[in-house]
Amino acid sequence: MILPAGPVLALSGGVGGAKLCLGLDDRLPAGQLHIACNTGDDFEHLGLTICPDIDTVLYTLGGVSNPEQGWGLAGETWQVLAALERLGADSWFRLGDRDLATHLWRAGELAQGRALSAVTADLARRLGVCATVYPMSDDPVRTMVHTAEGSLPFQHYFVREQCRPAVQGFSFAGIDSAALQPDLAALCTSGSLAGVIICPSNPFVSIDPILQLDSFWQTLRESRVPVVAVAPIVGGQALKGPAAKMMAELALPVTATGVASHYAQRYPGLIKTFVVDHSDATLAPAIQELGMEVEVTATIMRERADKQALARACLELLCR
Amino acid sequence: MILPAGPVLALSGGVGGAKLCLGLDDRLPAGQLHIACNTGDDFEHLGLTICPDIDTVLYTLGGVSNPEQGWGLAGETWQVLAALERLGADSWFRLGDRDLATHLWRAGELAQGRALSAVTADLARRLGVCATVYPMSDDPVRTMVHTAEGSLPFQHYFVREQCRPAVQGFSFAGIDSAALQPDLAALCTSGSLAGVIICPSNPFVSIDPILQLDSFWQTLRESRVPVVAVAPIVGGQALKGPAAKMMAELALPVTATGVASHYAQRYPGLIKTFVVDHSDATLAPAIQELGMEVEVTATIMRERADKQALARACLELLCR
Repeated sequence: MILPAGPVLALSGGVGGAKLCLGLDDRLPAGQLHIACNTGDDFEHLGLTICPDIDTVLYTLGGVSNPEQGWGLAGETWQVLAALERLGADSWFRLGDRDLATHLWRAGELAQGRALSAVTADLARRLGVCATVYPMSDDPVRTMVHTAEGSLPFQHYFVREQCRPAVQGFSFAGIDSAALQPDLAALCTSGSLAGVIICPSNPFVSIDPILQLDSFWQTLRESRVPVVAVAPIVGGQALKGPAAKMMAELALPVTATGVASHYAQRYPGLIKTFVVDHSDATLAPAIQELGMEVEVTATIMRERADKQALARACLELLCR
Repeated sequence: MILPAGPVLALSGGVGGAKLCLGLDDRLPAGQLHIACNTGDDFEHLGLTICPDIDTVLYTLGGVSNPEQGWGLAGETWQVLAALERLGADSWFRLGDRDLATHLWRAGELAQGRALSAVTADLARRLGVCATVYPMSDDPVRTMVHTAEGSLPFQHYFVREQCRPAVQGFSFAGIDSAALQPDLAALCTSGSLAGVIICPSNPFVSIDPILQLDSFWQTLRESRVPVVAVAPIVGGQALKGPAAKMMAELALPVTATGVASHYAQRYPGLIKTFVVDHSDATLAPAIQELGMEVEVTATIMRERADKQALARACLELLCR
């Protein structure tokens, strides 16, 4: 197979993004995969800073994630949560014991004044992850979901309310004063980057924060690095999470074209190739009209081989 | 039995103090027992504020403590600690899963800006504790142990180093700017207090911080409330912890008299009655020479009945 000659940057949210990152990690030589993780879903809970997308990516690449649910850790136990419930504490955020060890270790490091990126790199090393994983920023950015029932911090919307309230829009608290993580910024202006892959993550709450932070999308567009995006909607459904429900509530077409259109409007000229599933092949002309090339391939990643195949397709697109 | 007519205040460290507090809680009518806990042993670990003496008192009075070891919780498990060890994190402080729930809940409340005393009162309620338990201060005070190998934060000395380094002295970082917890201060100047019991806790690291904070010992002396102290040394040995080892290293006589002498020098005129064990009856004349009355009784608290009997003896001394 043909591989890009330089570093490749993936932009990722949680589960769906982590699957493609695992495929990319399998395909790329060591040191070549860089991953910018959304931190808009991060939140403060029980005195801890919890970073769900970073942890999902690290657990997945470290081979310790729970294969059934796609998030959390294999062999998880729930002793602390049971004790919190006995104390009458909030228990809607399901913190497993093994997962808690990550949060506690991170809390200790952050309390010593270390940057989130340094702590993330250290955690990656401890989990045996070879890819370079960056939080999009060392500064806090927190996604707010504006709903018919008021504005909710993302995890309140996502976990506590189970995505039930109808979405009206999003904002990213802190984004105006947050800086792109410096090493990530340096990578993207170094001239060495071979390509960017926008993972099949939620466009509104996983990818938008990364691209909008510090006008990152403009930096990428100006670098003229090829950008490939994978549709997170297949056959009118989100493979994981609330993307399809959000699109319907925002009166957007719940299709891969709807996602492409969102990206084309917000980030004109950024995406070179948009990847859709075989089942959405008929959408290609409409997406091409948005100014993107279209690649039709298998995008549903059930098995490891699926992840590797989609990763290969994306990497080959970067080499065209 | 004769009981004091008003509130009784116990000054307590961890295990030994908690035992007497349990006896006092059994003996006194609901609402009459107040406990000022040492917070000099508190420390920051993994982003958490851990309050060992408060928790030992609350767990003991809440009936959930581990009866074998005297600290920690019954039925404890260690899943998080095992995961922290797998991450290569510090694991010398043995955090159990159930205990962690307390620390996490407290961290969440403190992060919202609540005072430690408010969080402690709330925790007491959640654990079904009727006594009023105060941290000695809402401001951080941290005991430093000065040793032949340098100065160590208390838990580093106590847990990590297992009390091995030879002690040369102590200091209490933050004590000069810390205020006595306001409700505790109000109780002691209200005129209603019927008596104070200094529990058989470590004089140097459990009782000294409480008495020295905000000149608390002078406030108590000026209130003319009767003060009874129970010797933590019996037959030349500490019933629990490093008090005897510390006294030997400080070249003090390792006897109940040594403790009484320490208190008499530091807090002249404070203690009315010093309680020693039957096995130390011969020390009575030397202690009386320090200006204290001496009560000889059984001070070793193995069974619940022992705790109740010593509590009864102390309460009756307050009524004389």
